[in-house]
Amino acid sequence: MGTQSSAALRVPLIDSAILAADHPGVADLFAVLAYGEISAFYRLAEEAKLSPTLRGKVAVAKMAAAEMAHFETLEAALASTGADIFDAMAPFVRALDAYHASTDPSTWLESMVKFYVGDGIAADFYTEIAGALSPEVAAVVQDVLAETSHSEFVVEEVRKAVAVSRSERDRLTLWGRRLLGEAITQAQYVMAQRDELTDLVLTATGDLNGIAELFERMQTSHAERMAVLGL
Amino acid sequence: MGTQSSAALRVPLIDSAILAADHPGVADLFAVLAYGEISAFYRLAEEAKLSPTLRGKVAVAKMAAAEMAHFETLEAALASTGADIFDAMAPFVRALDAYHASTDPSTWLESMVKFYVGDGIAADFYTEIAGALSPEVAAVVQDVLAETSHSEFVVEEVRKAVAVSRSERDRLTLWGRRLLGEAITQAQYVMAQRDELTDLVLTATGDLNGIAELFERMQTSHAERMAVLGL
Repeated sequence: MGTQSSAALRVPLIDSAILAADHPGVADLFAVLAYGEISAFYRLAEEAKLSPTLRGKVAVAKMAAAEMAHFETLEAALASTGADIFDAMAPFVRALDAYHASTDPSTWLESMVKFYVGDGIAADFYTEIAGALSPEVAAVVQDVLAETSHSEFVVEEVRKAVAVSRSERDRLTLWGRRLLGEAITQAQYVMAQRDELTDLVLTATGDLNGIAELFERMQTSHAERMAVLGL
Repeated sequence: MGTQSSAALRVPLIDSAILAADHPGVADLFAVLAYGEISAFYRLAEEAKLSPTLRGKVAVAKMAAAEMAHFETLEAALASTGADIFDAMAPFVRALDAYHASTDPSTWLESMVKFYVGDGIAADFYTEIAGALSPEVAAVVQDVLAETSHSEFVVEEVRKAVAVSRSERDRLTLWGRRLLGEAITQAQYVMAQRDELTDLVLTATGDLNGIAELFERMQTSHAERMAVLGL
């Protein structure tokens, strides 16, 4: 997340400032979240083909529909900043598509772990950022990241499978690590490209040390989520 | 719709009766609608690959999410009848999958026409049936069939394309006819298999003449919808 390129990062003027809704990074934040929702929608719909049952397909379709409800919230929030959502999303298409291409699940269980773990990593990151934003911006971010009841389905499916298969458990444990690694790689790529977003994250976390600590907390949460899945 | 097999159809006992919510055909009706929504969801997600733009993909994802909102309404309605939704949907999987397989769009415009026309045909049919149902059942059916604002996007896309290309217009006109034909074929197949549903339709329409008149009205509405698309 830019810790290797500190020279390129500006020192924040105000420590832990409450950012105004019109900080230019806010439109970027809504846009990257919005493209995240639309790409998650299509990946889920595609990955549902791996489902062995209609029950699984229905569960995935509900998850995907929930992503679109979040997309519409972000679309409305972006419209209120005066930005065109398609222009605003364009800079994030490459990184998010690359994340999904590099973490293409080959089994139903990999797909379920990806949904749960990927959503969790994103929620950890954006929720921390939201804490430093103006209340109206924070409300939008928290709303679209709220965990839904759909994750119960995923937890059940994965726990059941790994309880009876040690090799499945080992495979999915490695898969979870890869998801975290790829997410961080693509987040770094995005930050390197988008000064306003980097500014916003730096202001939210305080300084480069703050970013490093945020990443440590995210790794801890990731490990906790893996444990919930029995991994 | 069974007009060729009148011997197999029972004569309704009550002419244009208001059906009770516990008519066994009501669970069938909710179930066929529910599987219609889930299969439409996945077809839309698949067909969105044909979209030349991200704008088109977003529009389709919103349509698909709206289908899932309808699915959840039907799931709740079915639960209130005591039926398991997966058991209830099972008899309709083959016919609806066959409809989609036989009308697999090969272009983005075919996909858009299919969405608009297919939804319209289904709405015409089920709305007429709903008129004869108890108010609480009718409310569920009308709710899930209500036209959404998404269809404006489809109308615009198709009208724009056919205004500048006569060959495209001719091709999509034929495509629209094929959609109606395939929908009627699969509806007949379903009716032949499901006595309770046939009973419900017969009661709603009065008799076999009523069914024939319903089909004539559906063809008129279909022609009107095609005209809206510029076809």
